[in-house]
Amino acid sequence: MSETIKYLLDEGQLPKSWYNIQADLPKPAPPVLHPGTHQPIGPGDLAPLFPMELIMQEVSTERQIDIPEPVRKIYRQWRPSPLYRARRLEAALQTPAKIYYKYEGVSPTGSHKPNTAIPQAFYNREAGIKRLVTETGAGQWGSSLAFAGGVFGLEVQVFMVRVSYDQKPYRRALMETYGASCIASPSDQTQSGRAILAQRADHPGSLGIAISEAVEIAAQRDDTKYSLGSVLNHVLMHQTVIGQEAMLQMEMAGDYPDVIVGCTGGGSNFAGIVFPFLGAQLRGGKKLRIVAVEPAACPSLTRGKYAYDFGDTAHLTPLTKMHTLGSTFTPPGFHAGGLRYHGMAPLVSHLLQLDLIEATAYHQIACFDAGVQFARAEGIVPAPEANHAVKGAIVEAIRCREEGKSRTILFNLCGHGHFDMQAYIDYFAGKLKDLNYDEAELAMALAGLPSVKEAA
Amino acid sequence: MSETIKYLLDEGQLPKSWYNIQADLPKPAPPVLHPGTHQPIGPGDLAPLFPMELIMQEVSTERQIDIPEPVRKIYRQWRPSPLYRARRLEAALQTPAKIYYKYEGVSPTGSHKPNTAIPQAFYNREAGIKRLVTETGAGQWGSSLAFAGGVFGLEVQVFMVRVSYDQKPYRRALMETYGASCIASPSDQTQSGRAILAQRADHPGSLGIAISEAVEIAAQRDDTKYSLGSVLNHVLMHQTVIGQEAMLQMEMAGDYPDVIVGCTGGGSNFAGIVFPFLGAQLRGGKKLRIVAVEPAACPSLTRGKYAYDFGDTAHLTPLTKMHTLGSTFTPPGFHAGGLRYHGMAPLVSHLLQLDLIEATAYHQIACFDAGVQFARAEGIVPAPEANHAVKGAIVEAIRCREEGKSRTILFNLCGHGHFDMQAYIDYFAGKLKDLNYDEAELAMALAGLPSVKEAA
Repeated sequence: MSETIKYLLDEGQLPKSWYNIQADLPKPAPPVLHPGTHQPIGPGDLAPLFPMELIMQEVSTERQIDIPEPVRKIYRQWRPSPLYRARRLEAALQTPAKIYYKYEGVSPTGSHKPNTAIPQAFYNREAGIKRLVTETGAGQWGSSLAFAGGVFGLEVQVFMVRVSYDQKPYRRALMETYGASCIASPSDQTQSGRAILAQRADHPGSLGIAISEAVEIAAQRDDTKYSLGSVLNHVLMHQTVIGQEAMLQMEMAGDYPDVIVGCTGGGSNFAGIVFPFLGAQLRGGKKLRIVAVEPAACPSLTRGKYAYDFGDTAHLTPLTKMHTLGSTFTPPGFHAGGLRYHGMAPLVSHLLQLDLIEATAYHQIACFDAGVQFARAEGIVPAPEANHAVKGAIVEAIRCREEGKSRTILFNLCGHGHFDMQAYIDYFAGKLKDLNYDEAELAMALAGLPSVKEAA
Repeated sequence: MSETIKYLLDEGQLPKSWYNIQADLPKPAPPVLHPGTHQPIGPGDLAPLFPMELIMQEVSTERQIDIPEPVRKIYRQWRPSPLYRARRLEAALQTPAKIYYKYEGVSPTGSHKPNTAIPQAFYNREAGIKRLVTETGAGQWGSSLAFAGGVFGLEVQVFMVRVSYDQKPYRRALMETYGASCIASPSDQTQSGRAILAQRADHPGSLGIAISEAVEIAAQRDDTKYSLGSVLNHVLMHQTVIGQEAMLQMEMAGDYPDVIVGCTGGGSNFAGIVFPFLGAQLRGGKKLRIVAVEPAACPSLTRGKYAYDFGDTAHLTPLTKMHTLGSTFTPPGFHAGGLRYHGMAPLVSHLLQLDLIEATAYHQIACFDAGVQFARAEGIVPAPEANHAVKGAIVEAIRCREEGKSRTILFNLCGHGHFDMQAYIDYFAGKLKDLNYDEAELAMALAGLPSVKEAA
């Protein structure tokens, strides 16, 4: 019997700064455009939605941005998070590969999301804000912002995609336990919501609609700001504590990855583990293979178009250049609700365009197969989202076995599945299906992309 | 804003031995009796159920028993577990008390139960056993033994109390994810089960019945043993890694408890945190107040009789002297399923008789009030069982405020509530009720205690 090996850092090794990959890009990412003028926006355009500190982080090209001490104090409740060598999984797979995983399920909400929820709440409180409004799909983000709001004394209001609100009451209960209020979206509390409900009273909702509702509320009140759990540059940057810690832990293990795997929905957990390693590569370090794994039912990186698009359905957000399935695309209701977003983080999209990363897509049953194999070997039950990363890592490990080569594989296990056991019940009962999106709907959504004349 | 402070040990500080309080008792606990002869049993009487290494631990009076290295290797996946100073809770309570909690929710199954599941599976595998059979109430124990069976390659069969099996499918799904089989109890697979079903086809089950079924199966096959998640001496001893680590962590904090609080069902998490501190007291160390908190709907320590009784409903187990509500007593269906047992660990019962500990009982709504207050302050949502310890600690902290005295309070947060969010939903919806047991049923169960003539 082999054992899982844990690499744990001292609290003193908790990163003192976030890593900003914008400092090391061979070519800057395309600018964010104003939806009306199609001209690059300035910080002032975002001021109704975000406090200035976060806006400045969004556009910064400084390599390191200091983590405020009050944020580090809260991080220390669960960070540095462990990195494990999956010896029992390696044995089960009979692979010569070495598999490491960084485990973010040790946070109070069981995922990586508090890494950005805490600083976002902190900067808003510093700016005198009283209330944060956000959206959530499966609820990992909403519950994490609810937790962060509690820590810094901010009221938190969450628009939760209706199908999740109805079918997955557990993360909703978690938000309420933390004192946040949770509203099914589309709702009658916003113009965007009412417009959707007028078309279809039983609309199941989508992340794009929930974002519209949250943005609309935030823009109306001076004491209220909007908060986003992925996609934006500053959100991805906050997650780089993951990869920075992992670099130190790989050093403890006397090893360095050949391949890094992460799952992608909006891109934040993937960026969190990948960017610090990729930054080292861009500054002359070892060349890595980096694999983004997305759901085949919502394949923005592998089937989407790299184009300017809105982040939300009601078109209240600026235009960002990203891999997108179109802002009107509604992904089918698979279990990894955290990966059901029509777009992809602009920075992750940009890296794919630069051939610095690869992307692949798997259907959900194959991901649950992988997740159960992982749980039986390593004892940790992954969230459905994280199962995509597990699947990607197992594919790489099996390739090593077939080629008779040992490679070092690192993946991000971004959250545990304790709130998602209904999905496992469906899986064991044979009720889980591999869902496909509607090709005609995708074609229509892509055809509806805004027409933007780009500067050369 | 104050912050939670974490005290983390190095892996090298993981205990090398379990602490056996039997070495330090001022008076030994009464012997376990054979159910037929009423004479003290010997190791051979337990051999059909347990491997000899565990039987020898059960009766040992050695102070330290070495933890085998393969067990320590698995412990290291999540141990040493963190100890926290609850600064945010202290601030919310405006108490001069210092509140510390040991957090066992970091294990793969989210509770303290793997601390004994792992060594139990290890010793059985060493003895050549192929299969473990056990019972579970809410499922914390069953899922932990399922995890441990997976680690050591043993088949695991769990009899789960039917009411939990039907109402709480999530921990059942967790057991199945680990590869264990889970059977609703009473079942038609045992004589004990069939006898109960013949009386009442829709019987909701109880831990006492599920124990009977598991013991019956284990006794029939040479390659199969029984495994119990609490109550027995060796199980409590395995949990002392908790208290031994907490002693080192309190030393790191430059502090020492005045009061220790734990919740009690069978007694194992309570014993785990308390015994090492109590042992130090018994060897001449500081005198502590130690408070066992139990559910008012199943109050074995505060309302039970200290008498010889069976551990199960079908009377297949030996007789142990303990605080008991009678083996035919069926506790009402409150949410802390892990505390719904008619008896109490003989060692914990003995300590209460010796006035070395106190006991108190609270109803479930007050415990959920406390749990929600804790979650909002500290970010961790406790399991319903652990809410009893939280309630006990908050009562002590408020007493400090009222008396204007600072005391150091330590409690064991034995598990997280991520699988128990339905209970929180019911709580917020006002559907939770303070259940009372039937006084007439209790009187009848106590009147039915076996008549044992004790040696002087």
